[in-house]
Amino acid sequence: MTDARASAKRVEVALGERSYPVMVDHGLLRRAGEWQSLVSAGGRVLVVTNEIVANWYLAPLLAGLRESATVLVLPDGESQKSMANVERVFAALAEARVTRDGTVVALGGGVIGDLAGFAAACWMRGIRFVQVPTTLLAMVDSAVGGKTGVNLPQGKNLVGAFHQPALVLADLATLDTLPDRELRAGCAEIIKYGAIGDAGFFAWLEANAARLLERDAAALAHAVATSVAQKARVVASDERESGVRALLNFGHTFGHALEQVAGFGTLLHGEAVAVGMLQAARMSAALGLADAADAERLATLLQRFGLPVAPPPGIDPESVLAAMTLDKKASRGALRFVLWQGIGRAMQVDDAPRDAVMAVLRTH
Amino acid sequence: MTDARASAKRVEVALGERSYPVMVDHGLLRRAGEWQSLVSAGGRVLVVTNEIVANWYLAPLLAGLRESATVLVLPDGESQKSMANVERVFAALAEARVTRDGTVVALGGGVIGDLAGFAAACWMRGIRFVQVPTTLLAMVDSAVGGKTGVNLPQGKNLVGAFHQPALVLADLATLDTLPDRELRAGCAEIIKYGAIGDAGFFAWLEANAARLLERDAAALAHAVATSVAQKARVVASDERESGVRALLNFGHTFGHALEQVAGFGTLLHGEAVAVGMLQAARMSAALGLADAADAERLATLLQRFGLPVAPPPGIDPESVLAAMTLDKKASRGALRFVLWQGIGRAMQVDDAPRDAVMAVLRTH
Repeated sequence: MTDARASAKRVEVALGERSYPVMVDHGLLRRAGEWQSLVSAGGRVLVVTNEIVANWYLAPLLAGLRESATVLVLPDGESQKSMANVERVFAALAEARVTRDGTVVALGGGVIGDLAGFAAACWMRGIRFVQVPTTLLAMVDSAVGGKTGVNLPQGKNLVGAFHQPALVLADLATLDTLPDRELRAGCAEIIKYGAIGDAGFFAWLEANAARLLERDAAALAHAVATSVAQKARVVASDERESGVRALLNFGHTFGHALEQVAGFGTLLHGEAVAVGMLQAARMSAALGLADAADAERLATLLQRFGLPVAPPPGIDPESVLAAMTLDKKASRGALRFVLWQGIGRAMQVDDAPRDAVMAVLRTH
Repeated sequence: MTDARASAKRVEVALGERSYPVMVDHGLLRRAGEWQSLVSAGGRVLVVTNEIVANWYLAPLLAGLRESATVLVLPDGESQKSMANVERVFAALAEARVTRDGTVVALGGGVIGDLAGFAAACWMRGIRFVQVPTTLLAMVDSAVGGKTGVNLPQGKNLVGAFHQPALVLADLATLDTLPDRELRAGCAEIIKYGAIGDAGFFAWLEANAARLLERDAAALAHAVATSVAQKARVVASDERESGVRALLNFGHTFGHALEQVAGFGTLLHGEAVAVGMLQAARMSAALGLADAADAERLATLLQRFGLPVAPPPGIDPESVLAAMTLDKKASRGALRFVLWQGIGRAMQVDDAPRDAVMAVLRTH
């Protein structure tokens, strides 16, 4: 993270021969000289994007590529993260005659990144893959770490692969067109990094919420790079989530279940995670693991970012509990949660008491 | 490979923490005590099989499992190795509520093993997987080494994953019901192991062809275990086929293209590989890499096993050449072949002269 511009940061994800850089900067897409040579390995390139993002950012990306690329433009939305669209990507790869030395470039948010990454993982048993995230959530979460996948009618992210990108290009200028609500939702995941492992960053967020919501480039660069650096450290030590990587799921067991019961699309992922983090913090307090004041400090910060701190009206707690049991993170029917011992100190609890879970779900 | 019975062999595939045993024996399925504790890790079990194999071997497998299992029975045939059936396996996994500690057991030939293995690789980003191969081809080739995948309308095995099984159970008794033609096709891959790396084994096959075709248990056990041991050594040194593992593709660039042009199902995979191996051997002789007498010795051995040594009538050489270019093993349009320097000495040739390829294709 050494560059003259306040907005220019670079984070390495250290995974041996599969290591890769995450470049963070404002205006990066239009400065192709900085990334052009890193995108492809000389083979054919397929760019996967959606119709909204394509309007704004496809032209500068294509102009910057050294080689001509084939482009697949999908509709926008979480419902597109489907097996049907994985098959559309496969058909495009076959049509473009992309072979083992080819590259898939995902230009878009988490839906495009997860979907295109999964297709790249499967195509000829795995080809190169570059993430160009255009939402705050994708920059700080899904684009880094190699988790790819799609939803099934039976649940979110039920199928997928661990497949690391070869490069992540996070151009903060793409956030200029991001709707306010999505910006706030992305901030929920940023808050998570402070909450689970960095009390100093949590305090910085308390002091800099307004700058982030105004999309100040230097503040965004600091928040994104700090989040990515924490995720990179965790992924480097536990790529396949057998241990410490699970801590990144703080707020997610509650959050995923809430998303599912509310109906996907009602809440943004980051909004559900905001509610879920607060529920995890309150459950931690109820179990005597942490001070209740820390949960309230989290609630205050979430509200400062305009994020929800309670589920939408009419959510049935029993349904949320039931939804948790097919979650990937559930193991043999036991309820596994990431809780905390206070700000910056997440911990995994393998067999959470059902009563404590229900008590928190009934609080709102 | 130390057991009192002549038919009992055990080969380890050495891949660090992902190492696993391949158990080879006659009557293994009915002696559950030898494998029961190795099949699952305590989670839920889904058995994927086909309607032919299920008739014969599903009952003994289920009787031997410690836990109750859900069963998905698919139709028989190469056309079933499709994305549509991967989605059927996903639906069965969701229905059975199989979570991260679950196991997929593939009971059948290469189609079932490749398909179920790919589904296991993708389910929750990878769960345990056990291969119970019931064809000779699957025992010596597809069940060992972790290559999984399915076909697309555009080509064979275009999508897939590297996902090692946790255990391979090769019960030679299941070969009792294998049609003669499939037994012979399996022998083609066994001959391949002699051809690419073991001249002594090649000579043993010349002397023991009749015993194998009569399904002598001790001869089959030696042939299967010797083949698996060679594949295990190659996979252990190059799991993801960046180098020496490619030598296992001897006969496969020609073979795959021939299968495709002939129309899948016209030739069995092993039959196409038999023709392909001979074409590779003849091309090696034409390029001055090997003695032509070695190619003719291979032709004689293939014929002794009742395998084809020429493509079916009416195959257009130009079409075969065209089919090679979308093959995964083609790199940037160059034709990459595994050739040999004679029996037991395979080598990779990265940029084979198109003329030499066409000359061999026109020979028949």
